[in-house]
Order: sequence, then C-alpha cells, then structure tokens
Amino acid sequence: MRALVYHGPEHSSWDTVTDPAIEEATDAIVRVDATTVCGSDLHILRGDLPEVKPGTILGHEAVGEVMEIGSGIHDLRPGDHVIVSSVSACGHCQPCRDGMYGQCRGGGGWILGSLVNGTQAEFVRVPFADHSTHRRPFDLPLDDAVLLAEVLPTAYEVGVRNGHVTPGDTVVVVGAGPVGLAAVVVARLYSPRRIVVTDLSASRLEAAARVGADAAELPGRMIAELSEGPGADVVIEATGEPEGFVLCTRAVRAGGHIANIGTHGKPATLHLESLWRKNVTISTGQVDTSSTPWLMQLVGFGRLPVSRLVSHTFGLDRMEEAYEAFAHGTTTGALKVVLHRE
Amino acid sequence: MRALVYHGPEHSSWDTVTDPAIEEATDAIVRVDATTVCGSDLHILRGDLPEVKPGTILGHEAVGEVMEIGSGIHDLRPGDHVIVSSVSACGHCQPCRDGMYGQCRGGGGWILGSLVNGTQAEFVRVPFADHSTHRRPFDLPLDDAVLLAEVLPTAYEVGVRNGHVTPGDTVVVVGAGPVGLAAVVVARLYSPRRIVVTDLSASRLEAAARVGADAAELPGRMIAELSEGPGADVVIEATGEPEGFVLCTRAVRAGGHIANIGTHGKPATLHLESLWRKNVTISTGQVDTSSTPWLMQLVGFGRLPVSRLVSHTFGLDRMEEAYEAFAHGTTTGALKVVLHRE
Amino acid sequence: MRALVYHGPEHSSWDTVTDPAIEEATDAIVRVDATTVCGSDLHILRGDLPEVKPGTILGHEAVGEVMEIGSGIHDLRPGDHVIVSSVSACGHCQPCRDGMYGQCRGGGGWILGSLVNGTQAEFVRVPFADHSTHRRPFDLPLDDAVLLAEVLPTAYEVGVRNGHVTPGDTVVVVGAGPVGLAAVVVARLYSPRRIVVTDLSASRLEAAARVGADAAELPGRMIAELSEGPGADVVIEATGEPEGFVLCTRAVRAGGHIANIGTHGKPATLHLESLWRKNVTISTGQVDTSSTPWLMQLVGFGRLPVSRLVSHTFGLDRMEEAYEAFAHGTTTGALKVVLHRE
Amino acid sequence: MRALVYHGPEHSSWDTVTDPAIEEATDAIVRVDATTVCGSDLHILRGDLPEVKPGTILGHEAVGEVMEIGSGIHDLRPGDHVIVSSVSACGHCQPCRDGMYGQCRGGGGWILGSLVNGTQAEFVRVPFADHSTHRRPFDLPLDDAVLLAEVLPTAYEVGVRNGHVTPGDTVVVVGAGPVGLAAVVVARLYSPRRIVVTDLSASRLEAAARVGADAAELPGRMIAELSEGPGADVVIEATGEPEGFVLCTRAVRAGGHIANIGTHGKPATLHLESLWRKNVTISTGQVDTSSTPWLMQLVGFGRLPVSRLVSHTFGLDRMEEAYEAFAHGTTTGALKVVLHRE
Repeated sequence: MRALVYHGPEHSSWDTVTDPAIEEATDAIVRVDATTVCGSDLHILRGDLPEVKPGTILGHEAVGEVMEIGSGIHDLRPGDHVIVSSVSACGHCQPCRDGMYGQCRGGGGWILGSLVNGTQAEFVRVPFADHSTHRRPFDLPLDDAVLLAEVLPTAYEVGVRNGHVTPGDTVVVVGAGPVGLAAVVVARLYSPRRIVVTDLSASRLEAAARVGADAAELPGRMIAELSEGPGADVVIEATGEPEGFVLCTRAVRAGGHIANIGTHGKPATLHLESLWRKNVTISTGQVDTSSTPWLMQLVGFGRLPVSRLVSHTFGLDRMEEAYEAFAHGTTTGALKVVLHRE
Repeated sequence: MRALVYHGPEHSSWDTVTDPAIEEATDAIVRVDATTVCGSDLHILRGDLPEVKPGTILGHEAVGEVMEIGSGIHDLRPGDHVIVSSVSACGHCQPCRDGMYGQCRGGGGWILGSLVNGTQAEFVRVPFADHSTHRRPFDLPLDDAVLLAEVLPTAYEVGVRNGHVTPGDTVVVVGAGPVGLAAVVVARLYSPRRIVVTDLSASRLEAAARVGADAAELPGRMIAELSEGPGADVVIEATGEPEGFVLCTRAVRAGGHIANIGTHGKPATLHLESLWRKNVTISTGQVDTSSTPWLMQLVGFGRLPVSRLVSHTFGLDRMEEAYEAFAHGTTTGALKVVLHRE
Repeated sequence: MRALVYHGPEHSSWDTVTDPAIEEATDAIVRVDATTVCGSDLHILRGDLPEVKPGTILGHEAVGEVMEIGSGIHDLRPGDHVIVSSVSACGHCQPCRDGMYGQCRGGGGWILGSLVNGTQAEFVRVPFADHSTHRRPFDLPLDDAVLLAEVLPTAYEVGVRNGHVTPGDTVVVVGAGPVGLAAVVVARLYSPRRIVVTDLSASRLEAAARVGADAAELPGRMIAELSEGPGADVVIEATGEPEGFVLCTRAVRAGGHIANIGTHGKPATLHLESLWRKNVTISTGQVDTSSTPWLMQLVGFGRLPVSRLVSHTFGLDRMEEAYEAFAHGTTTGALKVVLHRE
Repeated sequence: MRALVYHGPEHSSWDTVTDPAIEEATDAIVRVDATTVCGSDLHILRGDLPEVKPGTILGHEAVGEVMEIGSGIHDLRPGDHVIVSSVSACGHCQPCRDGMYGQCRGGGGWILGSLVNGTQAEFVRVPFADHSTHRRPFDLPLDDAVLLAEVLPTAYEVGVRNGHVTPGDTVVVVGAGPVGLAAVVVARLYSPRRIVVTDLSASRLEAAARVGADAAELPGRMIAELSEGPGADVVIEATGEPEGFVLCTRAVRAGGHIANIGTHGKPATLHLESLWRKNVTISTGQVDTSSTPWLMQLVGFGRLPVSRLVSHTFGLDRMEEAYEAFAHGTTTGALKVVLHRE
C-alpha cells in the first residue's frame, strides 16, 4: 500500500510499504477512507519527538471501514464503518476504567503514528480496536467524522470542559489554528457572551471570524479590550508557545480559568507575583477521547456546526501537498485538511 | 493606646498612639484580647508591599470584645465577643454577594494592617464590622479562635478545598510554616492516605511531625519516595518561593492538583514541556474567610485539633519579642505566636 | 393609592388604600412601573395559603423607581430604576451569606404579597431593599425586566440548574404554564438535543411551540415517544399536581434528573419499587433569585430571548381583568400578563 | 459441588449440584473461599423477585481463587486471589465505559445469584470476569475482602457519595442493618459532626453504637433531637420500607440530601406539599462497584475499620444456619455473616 513514512527530522515521503496485518488478538485492520494532518505531525517532522523512530507511518486520525479483526475483538465486524480515535485504550487498566484513556497504562495512549504505524496510509492496524474506535452513523459525513478522531474531543475536554465555559462568559482563545477554532465552535454550546480569538496571523483571524468568533483581534487589541472590564472568564491556550501562555495569564480575570491545550516544547513564565492572589485555575491535559460518543451525537443532532473547520480536501495520494498546505496555514488559510480515499 | 506601628522598611515599634474611633457607620471598635503575627507582616517589614504606608498599625487577625458600634451596625452589640477576620467585606458588591470577600469591590478585601490600621494594638477599628466579624462561642478558647481569623480559612479554602483533597489521597505540603501546618490539620478532615510535609529546616520538619504529618522530609527524599509511585494527588505550595512552586510540579501525579497558598514576590518557571500532557490543575487564591463559620463549628465539635498550631504566647506588650520569635521560626520553632491582653 | 387587596378566599378587589411608608431603616418605597401575576397569587385566592391574612396587598414581582429610602440603605438612591425580587433577603443571616435568600432567617424569604403588602399596587414598600432589588439597565425593556423578578430565576435555579441540563440532553417540561415555558427558554442556553413540553391544554401546547419547544405533546404521546429510547435526561415538573410529578418519574431515564418547580398542595406517590434502582436524582426548591444579576446580563447580551413569555399587557387599573385572563390561561392563551403604570 | 439452590418462594436447600464450567470466553471459574448473605437474598426467598427462577444458586458476593479462565480473559490467571463483585460488567457498552456497571446493557448488571448461578457454593462461574473481579492483596483479610464485593461500595456510592456527606455534617442513617451500618463506617471518612442511626430494634441500635455511631435512637427520639436544630444535612435510607423513606423526609433539613439505598417493593408517599420549598435532593441508585478499587485501598491503608461489620462466621456447609442467623438479625444481632471454605 501507499503511506506517509517518517524518515527522520525534516524528512518524510509517500512510499509504497507492506500492508498492515493483525498482530494482536485485539487489533483490527481499517481501510482509511479519510484522514487528516495534525500540528503534532509537524512537531514530529521537526524532530521534536525523538521517541518517534524513522520508518514510522505518521497520522493518528482516521475514518474508514473495518477489513479484518483479531480473534479477541468483541464490538466490531468487517464492513463496519468507524472513526479511529487518536488515543488507543487497552480498556483494562485503572485509567481506562476511569475514562482517562490518554493516561492508559496497558500499552495505549497516543501511540498511533507515534510509537506504532499510523493512519496516513491506505490501511492502518488499529490496536485495542474495541476501545479505540467508534461506529460511524451512516449519515455522518466523512469530513465531520474525521474531526471526531481528535480535534473536537481535544477542544471540548481540554479546552471547554477544563475551562468550565458557562453561559454569559467572555471566552478568549489564544491561537487560531484548527484546535483553537474547534474550541470556538464547541464553546458555543454553552452560550458564552462573547468569544474573542487572538492570533498574529491576519488570515487566521479571518478564519476565526468565519467559524463564528464574535471578535478576532491581535493580542494587543484583545488585551486593551479586556482591560475595560474584569478580564476573561475563560482563556484557552492553543499556541503551544510560552508567549501564548503568558498572554493567557494577562487576559484572565480574577477567579477565571486558563485551559491549556497547546503542546509545549519549552517552559513558560508563571507570574505568581501577581497571580497568587487572583484565584485563577490553570489546567493542562491530553485528550482522552472519552467525549467522542457524546460529541458525535451533538454533531448528528445539528448542535455542533463543524464543517467550516475543514478548509481543504485532497485525494490520499496528494498527502505531501496536503502537508504543505497545512504547514503554511497562515498563508494558505488551511485549517483542517482532509484526505480522502479515491 | 499601645500599638505596633510600621515606620517604613525594616522599621517598626511598639508605640503610644491615639485610640481608634468610629469613622463610618459600619465600623466597630474592638478591644483586642488576642492577636497574632503573620508571614505577610514580615513581607511588609521587608518593604515588599509599598502600598502599606509608614504610620500604619500592623496586624490583621484578632479576637476581642466589641466596645462601640457605628450607627449602621446590625449584627453586633457592645460586649459581644468576636473573631475579627483578616478580610473585610462590604457585603454589598457582587463578589461579596458571591462569598468572594477577598475580591470585595466595595472598599474591603485585605485592608486591615495594610491600607488601614490593624489589630496588633490594644484596640482596633473594624471596617464593615457586620460582615467582617464572627461571634465567638464562649467556650471557644482564645488561642483557637485567633486561628480562625485567617490561618485556618486560608489552609482550607486555598489549600485543601482548591486542591480537592479526597479520602485515600497522598497529600504533599511544601513549606512547614504555620499555614502549611494548618493545611496538614485541615486536610485530615478528608481522610487522606498520607500527608507528607517537606521543608529545608529540621526544626520545622519536627513541628510538622508534631501537628500530625505522616512524614516530614527534606525535598530530595520526598521526591525519591514519590518516584516509587505515580506522585502526589494533591500538592500544597506554602513557601511563596519559586523553588517551592517548581518542587510542587515535580511532586504532582498526572491528573493531580497543585494548590498555591504561598505569597509570591517573583515569577516561577512553569515546565509546560512536561506538564502540558499531565492533566494537572493549578490553583491560586487569596482567602475569602467565607468558610470561617463552618471551620468554627468543626473546631467546636472537636473535629479540628488546632491547638498545636500555637507554639508561643506572649503578653501584648511583648509584641516586638513575639515578632522576633516568629521571624526566626526555623531556629525558635515558632509556629503561630499569640499575644494576649493582660 | 390603588392596590389589589386580598379579602379572604375567593375574594379580592382593586381598592383605594393608604400609601406605604418607610417602616424600617432598610426599607425603600418603590413606584411600580410594571408588575405581574403569578400562579401562587391564585393559590392565595383559593385559600391555600392560610398564612396570608385578609387585608394584604398581593403581588411579589415588580419593576419601578425608588421614591424614598430608609436611613440604613446603602446601595439605592431615589430615582434609581430597579427590579424588585420576589424574595427579600436580610443579607445578614447565614443562608443569605450563602446566597440562599429563599431560606432567609432574618425576616426575609418570600414575604412580599404574602406576609407583608406586595407589588400589585401603585407603590410598594420593599423590605431589605439593598439586598432585594437589582438596578435595571436603562435599555432593558420593562416587560423583560419584570420577568427577572421571579419567573426567570425560578426557571433557571430550580429547573435548569437543579436538573443539570447539559448539551445534547433530552429535556421534558411537564406543564406549559409561564414557569414551565420560561424553563424552555432558559434550558436552551445549554444546547439540549430536544425540549419536549407536555400539557393537557391544546392552547398551552401551542404556546410551548411558540416559545421554542422542539415538540409539544399530550402526556401519552410524550411517554410513547420517550419509550423508544432510554427516557429523558432531565424532567422539569411545573404543574404542582401529583399526577404531574408521577408523570415525571415515568419519563426520566435511568441516571436522569427530576427537578420540581411546581408548588404542591398535596403529596405525590413516589414509585420507589421501580425508582430505587434507576439512579435518579429528584430535587425540590424555592427560588433564591441569586441568579438574577447573571440572567439580567444574559438577557442584555441577547442570549435569552424572553419577550415571547409575555402574552398580555394591561394598564395597572385593569388588574382584575388581568387576573381573569391569567387564571383562564388555557382558554385565553395567557402566559405572563404584565401590568403597566399609565 | 455443594451449593444453596433456590427452589421457589420460601424454599431453598444446600444441595449437591454439578460443578460450574466455562461457558463463554470471558468467564472464569472461582473457588469460593468466603461468601456472605445479603438482604436481597431474603427478598428472593420471599418470592419478591419473580425473575429469579427455581434452580438458581443464590449469592452474589465472594472472595476466592481463580481455577480456570475462558480464552478471552486478559487480566486473570489461575491461582489469582480475587474479590468477585456483585455487579458484572461487560466492559464494552456505553454505561460500562462510563463506569455505570449496574446499568450494563451488554448482559451484565446484577445477574449473579439472580439471573445466573451465584456465589453461595463451592465454585462459581463469574461472567465477564475481567471487569467483574478485583485482585485481592495478599494481606487483605478474607472477611474484609468479602465486604468489598457489595456492601461497602453500596454504602459509599449510593449512600455517602450520593448524599454528599461533608465535614461537620449531621448524618442520619435510617435502618441499622448491615448496609446502614456500613454507611456509618464509610461516612466517617468525611469527618461528619455526628452520625445518628435509627431503627426499631434494640439489638440493632446496640450494633450501631458498636460500629461507631455517635447516637443510636428510636425514630421518635431521633426526630425530637433533630427538631432542636435545622434537621439533618444528609439522611440515608437503608430499610427499603415506605415508612423508612417518609421518616427520611421528616429528618432532612432544608437544603439537605436524602440518599436512598433501600431496596423497595412498594411505593412511598412523597410529601411534596412541604418538601417542594425545602430545596432537598433525593437520590436513588443501584451500586456500580466502580469504587471498589478505591475502597480496597482505604481498607488497606487502615482508613476504613470495617471488621466490626462482620458479626458471625460459619463454615460453608452451615449455609442454612447462616441464613437463619442473618434473617433474624434483630434477635441474633447478626450483621454480615461470612461463610468460609473449610
């Protein structure tokens, strides 16, 4: 089959590789009907995640059809259409029993496209498939479904839920990439007063307006606006940069929440000299994808209009082109790019 | 009367000053039967709080008898025995209506011994006395009562409650000063598995053992012990030092809480490069003293054995000696020092 | 002045009475610019509340202008435009400090138009006026404002909040009177999947559809619809009848919530033989109106479209006509009827 | 093997039956080292649960050794010592993924000794054994371990947790049978002010005192005591009788919680005419046993002194004698009776 193989920092290619096969009784083989590219794929390509070994197929989000199942599979049958979660869950360890799949101690967690071969390929071996896939309703569009593999549960669990968005809140999202904009869409479920997105890129700010932000502003203007009131009730960090985090601590009101979604490679400065008395709550987190069934229903009921989060679609064979578009999102306007089997 | 007057950095003295008088209709004059010294008094003396002007009487914790009341007082009568909270509450602004007295916008908050004259004196004018005092039950000892003015509500609200201490938890308290040790006593209400206190001072570690810590260890040993398991469920920062905060982030388990009580004068480093995926929650806060009535009941019911938190008592006239003992707690073994009217 | 005076069961009239005057330092006199009629006014007229003495002026919801204030008033000035809450709060007792104004032990609670003269009059004496009124923003229409005096906080606090409405929920409202329909409007803040209203009256079901219910059905049909799935996540009782409550217990899913808003005069049967294992939570409650400032902001931000809850308006002098329309809501289609000063 | 077989209402006997064998891949066969009798076993014998067919082996709590495992078992090996939960969990359905094992839709829930053969036998087939057993630490005594199969998680999840027991609370437990008394022990984790147990039986009240109740009183006296204050913060129903439930509604304070543990066969009267304005929360529930690992740690750490809940021990062959003692607990003083393999 064809797949995007990581060959070490700054180097990947769309190669012909051996088809995956069942290795464990709890595996399933899924034919990839749609996949997408994530910011963490770019981190890998930059060499930021040394645990990813050359030769690994990248990608951890997919929608597809079950081709084959291991002998220990209980919930899936060949022919089933599924969403493949970015997080694999053994389903047996205590964190998995508590729904904290991202902290799985039984061999799961974020392993797809990282410790094992991933989804940017024609086929993928899905470990612990019973607990790591969700049946896709036949009327759920592919492009909506692929967002449920990671970006929507991340925006909800790590951003909106950890940030405790409440009706009437002023919500600030720092960073207008795909996950930040997904947080805009999901936060809307709780009827905030106003969602303000901030970013340094004009095209990203335009995208923020398109997905429904009430305001999309450069950081200085956002801070100036907030300084007329007590500050933001909830601030969602979605840049992964130390400056983004510090901006959050400036924007939050006394008693407010900062929810960090960003994947950080460096420490940030925590201004405890002013924050110690501000009653703020700061949360960090990796997605569990435990909210996926619930989010899938909300998309299905028409309560979550997510389709504007997909900016570009490509055929699977145009994987490298898709990476190119995604990596230069500030100029191409790319949000989520979705690749379809042709 | 006699009172401890701040004369600018590094300088204070036990002076003769004019007796306080009612200034506002919502004032009460209280005769101080017991007061105490707080770490923030030492901060003021070091010049760290420039908003405190020379000439101010220090102190913000007291127990005493109401001598005189303003015309707008509703809940107090001369002769009442009261605890004077460190936080004054106007009772009218939205934060006060929400019980967030520390964020009062009507002129209250922490003002005693800071923006207005305080309690280290024979008499004190208590602003907003209706909402800033609590009737002391006649059988509640003075030394227990004075702890309810600030140190116990701080340990509970900012440490134990914000940190979500739960039965079976491993709780680490970083910093074995009076507030840290009060957190040990209060955390016990929730039946943690184990409370480990860490500090650099041997005498403070001894004090930790005396107030009931399950272990009292130097930081290195504490980290080594935790490294055998997943880490601490709750870590309470009670040093106010950047190193103390960083230690908290090393001790906390994935999914755990860090509750900052410490008063910080400098930023700390937040190691987001490892914390971003650890699902930690960090809270900061200033006490509201909204929990004082509840804590007073718990002390009254015998559920909170707080008397060991008081290490030294002095007559009011020996104020400077009491400061001396308190400021050198690591050598004198001083925890809370209480001064009594003679 | 003119006022609606209760003269004992089944008897009231629009009489000329003495103008109210300040009696306590914490009183204010408010000129009534708008008031409304509540289901509990009808209960009083039926003689169901013997604590209401003949001679009492009815009504407990109003919007108006402050005419005069007692010497102990802190937050109001003559000329202020205010919403008068149905619940009076002394502001000093422990329940008031905890925001539970409906349980006030200092002489407040629901006393207006019940234990003291009420708002269905040209002027009203408002006890504890500092804590029992809310400044009305100049751009908030009278008819929206009067809904904030009781019906909206009741729908939110006792229905939607106690019922824990969550995005994606199926919400059933039993009883399509004004409070039930207010719950429909407020529940929408949390993006439920579907709000189903049930009632025996065809005109009330039509009204339910007008205020935005997704379905408005007779009880039998509602139960039939739910029986195809696990049942309702949240059921809100808004009839005050035993049959209404029993219907709620049939509609709720295992693990769901029943939030009782209805004012009941008789016991209901609780089918514990089936409910004991269903993990249901049943809550009851009287409004505190602590949520009024927050709801007022949501109305102001355009997040709560409440105006359709007002079906009829009258001049104040047509009070008896308004009662007539309201009491026969199932034929007149009356929801909230608002009376304006002319 | 020998086992207690149900032969229809009022009839059971300790019979020789065929040994159980693996039927499904997810089964395990466990040799019973300890089992116990539950109030619901008596319900079955009275004929209250027609779904239990004659021929069924009773019992749903056990501790023992794994003898044999099905091919689909992942977490267990022959020779493992385990606690067999009363609730079986398929581990795949949505309720199981949410930790609501009692509501399992995949064939689990409370089936042991009810829909399939149970634990009052020398051996038991445990369905869904991976998700329905817990490894027993070698130093956890058998008699403590068997309490973790149902009675302790029930007391915690359905009583203490649903009732929101909080430090300083007055807790009333209505019904001093084994589950009620387990609730006394578990509630102590949260440092209540006072736990009052009520029952009609003098011997049960004595047992309540022995397990640590602060007071054990007849209902009339309990109500009289509470009437001096606002009532109980938390009331736990543990009788399963309508009168017990009504007593709870009389004991609870405004704003308090009623947590129903009792297994009810008849409806109860809900006095909404007084409760509607009391802000009470009533919860019902069936145990999930999701808290068992946590409770097991608390027992292991010495935080839950549970051994006094076992009043009698018997050899397995004396099963009928054990039932006799348990069924007449009010005269025999029996709480939990534990049967050991000899």
